[in-house]
Amino acid sequence: MSLKRKDLLGIEELSPEEIDLILNTAVSMKEIGTRPIKKVPTLRGRTVMNLFFESSTRTRASFEIAEKRLSADSLNFQSAGSSMTKGESLLDTTRNLEAMAPDVIVIRHEASGAPHFMARASKASVINAGDGMHEHPTQALLDAFTIREHKKELKGLRVAILGDLLHSRVFRSNLWLFSKMGAEVSVAGPPPLVPIGIQKLGARVARTAEDAIEGADVVMLLRVQTERMAGSYFPSVREYFRTFGLTARRLERAKPDAILMHPGPMNRGVEIDSEVADGPRSVILEQVANGVAVRMAVLYLLAGGMDE
Amino acid sequence: MSLKRKDLLGIEELSPEEIDLILNTAVSMKEIGTRPIKKVPTLRGRTVMNLFFESSTRTRASFEIAEKRLSADSLNFQSAGSSMTKGESLLDTTRNLEAMAPDVIVIRHEASGAPHFMARASKASVINAGDGMHEHPTQALLDAFTIREHKKELKGLRVAILGDLLHSRVFRSNLWLFSKMGAEVSVAGPPPLVPIGIQKLGARVARTAEDAIEGADVVMLLRVQTERMAGSYFPSVREYFRTFGLTARRLERAKPDAILMHPGPMNRGVEIDSEVADGPRSVILEQVANGVAVRMAVLYLLAGGMDE
Amino acid sequence: MSLKRKDLLGIEELSPEEIDLILNTAVSMKEIGTRPIKKVPTLRGRTVMNLFFESSTRTRASFEIAEKRLSADSLNFQSAGSSMTKGESLLDTTRNLEAMAPDVIVIRHEASGAPHFMARASKASVINAGDGMHEHPTQALLDAFTIREHKKELKGLRVAILGDLLHSRVFRSNLWLFSKMGAEVSVAGPPPLVPIGIQKLGARVARTAEDAIEGADVVMLLRVQTERMAGSYFPSVREYFRTFGLTARRLERAKPDAILMHPGPMNRGVEIDSEVADGPRSVILEQVANGVAVRMAVLYLLAGGMDE
Repeated sequence: MSLKRKDLLGIEELSPEEIDLILNTAVSMKEIGTRPIKKVPTLRGRTVMNLFFESSTRTRASFEIAEKRLSADSLNFQSAGSSMTKGESLLDTTRNLEAMAPDVIVIRHEASGAPHFMARASKASVINAGDGMHEHPTQALLDAFTIREHKKELKGLRVAILGDLLHSRVFRSNLWLFSKMGAEVSVAGPPPLVPIGIQKLGARVARTAEDAIEGADVVMLLRVQTERMAGSYFPSVREYFRTFGLTARRLERAKPDAILMHPGPMNRGVEIDSEVADGPRSVILEQVANGVAVRMAVLYLLAGGMDE
Repeated sequence: MSLKRKDLLGIEELSPEEIDLILNTAVSMKEIGTRPIKKVPTLRGRTVMNLFFESSTRTRASFEIAEKRLSADSLNFQSAGSSMTKGESLLDTTRNLEAMAPDVIVIRHEASGAPHFMARASKASVINAGDGMHEHPTQALLDAFTIREHKKELKGLRVAILGDLLHSRVFRSNLWLFSKMGAEVSVAGPPPLVPIGIQKLGARVARTAEDAIEGADVVMLLRVQTERMAGSYFPSVREYFRTFGLTARRLERAKPDAILMHPGPMNRGVEIDSEVADGPRSVILEQVANGVAVRMAVLYLLAGGMDE
Repeated sequence: MSLKRKDLLGIEELSPEEIDLILNTAVSMKEIGTRPIKKVPTLRGRTVMNLFFESSTRTRASFEIAEKRLSADSLNFQSAGSSMTKGESLLDTTRNLEAMAPDVIVIRHEASGAPHFMARASKASVINAGDGMHEHPTQALLDAFTIREHKKELKGLRVAILGDLLHSRVFRSNLWLFSKMGAEVSVAGPPPLVPIGIQKLGARVARTAEDAIEGADVVMLLRVQTERMAGSYFPSVREYFRTFGLTARRLERAKPDAILMHPGPMNRGVEIDSEVADGPRSVILEQVANGVAVRMAVLYLLAGGMDE
């Protein structure tokens, strides 16, 4: 079975059935990662280009491991020091890479929509690894996969999401996913960082962090980009922690079996207290582990099923 | 069959028979790139070191894909951030890499002759991926391969080459190749950028772009390095385009079935008008695609045939 | 047979039997590097992460070649441009990488003890590729391997080590190794660069370079880090060469069949004269070649033997 689409550009365009297919496929992929020989020949002889126009360590590593476990040939391009973009438009870059016949292009780009543009110009399958403030679909899929491991299904769950909602592509992809799968989302964050009209996308805007967390099955934090934020969107990092930082006391508002998620890297003492980050409800490291399995599933469904 | 030489350092030293051998081998290599599993075990267990002392995206990517399609083990070194050259001569660097027993070294270097130096100091096969203003032999070979796909043979063709002839290793390698294979070359460029005595190498110096293009089977443009050039060799980028930029009108001077080539990356609106760059005569993206096949052929002929 | 330990963090903790096991294993590994197909499937499907928080070319290349010859899947991380360390502790970085289930982590870090820290936090085998001024165990092992190729055994040999003893992790690892294996070590260097109390670790501090070299079977030089040193620890580079630089005349003090070693990269005319660096007693390039074999042995013993 395979996805009936060439690309994975965002959660917005996926049907619940497609999301289920990816998550179910990831279950078998996860098993491969537990073997002594963590490798299957599924994508042997397929060329995957990893294009990271924004710096990234964990997402890039996660994709690269996924590609190697599937025996694909990976090529890495990073914008720093690359002549790729010098005097050349994204269209010309795409056409040039396309001429080398990649099967898959994984792209992270600071411009929202760059992967969509590339997908239209290329016969290769394009996977969005994060575009501007738009979407980061594999992150939302690995979050959903992790939740399913703990809560069986997403339908009917209560999810609280806290932090910088405005700039977060992780939030946007997760909000699409939870809405499609029938979970209820409550959000909280500093008022300037709560997008206007977000209710129309299915989120309930809570007045306080406590209010959002109340009765939640899942508490999801977003990373505060301290370098960019402090002083312009909220008074100080200390103030942020006081109002929105997840502490053991705040987490008590959630259900007794609630799980705690964070896309990483964490700012301990800013959006999360170390006590809960390392506590028994945290599934943060499971998210990282599941990222490899989910990306294997996406690669397999887009590029592996074609001619079999 | 194999090349009876250890290295590929330049077109100057190749015989027409050797050029034919490489181009014919590239035909079979190109076929591999069209298969679903684009991989043959030819260079399995061979170590290829890619040494790029100058930044490069497309040439490096093209070589790396070629190496992976032949199942070689690739290692990448880039000079930026590398301790390789710190307080160490090119000779010591070569000896150290040599001690790790590479089978092939692909080198791009800003100094003309660096690959030749390395070839003498190493038992590995050395492939010149561009040395200073000297040669870029795999580029000329991929250009020749692309022309042959459209024009059957090079002999008797009329080729026009326009642009910065003085600084171009692509030009130098192509001029050697066309002369050896019996094509006629006409060139045009801003007078300070036309090397003195170039007629002795077999090129006809035309007075204008129009004059060079007149009756051509192949129109080849060279990249204008705007960052380096404008203001010192010609009055302005706008002036360059007015006098040498390839427009539809100028291309009319060529034969009706003439093809248009550019080694990339293009400066649209400087040396080439978008209308012709994307037009039906342009084979620019075919050049990129053929680059992989030609580099596979060179790698195979230098390193694959030895012990079979 | 395999090492009965998870990690290779330093020579200090190894027994003479373990050192022998690694060196004996490296003999078979070296043979693989002489085959036309320099590759065995030993570590197929194992994931090796190379984490270089300090820049390195030769050690990184040596490990990467070793990994590829054993068919492992390598991932490279370099701190430059990496978000790995941004706002994240080494513990969080380790846990995140650990979540992706690597089998081996090779780490170079400017902080002494960083690999030990990582080893405690990870189920992966951790190999120290150089930590601050502490240890560089694979360098000492390749040095010992090279000596054994020329001198049969280390026991009873006289080894002279010259240079910046204070800052050298290569020195520290070698001193442990020679002491454990029964060789006698004499050292010499500018007084501020001779660590106080070094005699307790088994080294004899000679008054002059000549005195240290007298009767030596092995003369080992350490790299002078001219960029850091000149002017603060010794008057000038010229003065260093005059007092400690290895010349043919100084080398005459050693035994007639003495060998000359240097971990590279060399500063010709500073710690070593070109005449001896390239002379018949120099085994400097053999050290580089043996580095690959020794690293293959370590990788195999830590990660290859587990489930066989």
